[in-house]
Amino acid sequence: IIMGSEGEGMRRLTMESCDELVYIPMSGNEHGNLQSLNVSVATGMALYEINRQRTLAAGQA
Amino acid sequence: IIMGSEGEGMRRLTMESCDELVYIPMSGNEHGNLQSLNVSVATGMALYEINRQRTLAAGQA
Repeated sequence: IIMGSEGEGMRRLTMESCDELVYIPMSGNEHGNLQSLNVSVATGMALYEINRQRTLAAGQA
Repeated sequence: IIMGSEGEGMRRLTMESCDELVYIPMSGNEHGNLQSLNVSVATGMALYEINRQRTLAAGQA
């Protein structure tokens, strides 16, 4: 897993080496929009989702 | 959402006020087991899952 930096994301050449690109949708409210998530929080979400899908797939096998 | 503290979790009286209690499963490997997740990371996972379920439910409505 490669995480993009909080401000600028990934470099183009890094992106081009990835098998898949995913984006975590972020919310806004009347005070403005989130521009990025803290990278450790985003990594936790990514690992949570990977574990969720693997557990589901294992249950279906 | 109430998050338990990283070491000791929630106080009993706090727990008793909750509608539901959830636990994030954690992995271990040959170097040992994770004892707790950073509370901001755990909160990100919880919000990610809430958003995932709400988006699913909205799609089915």
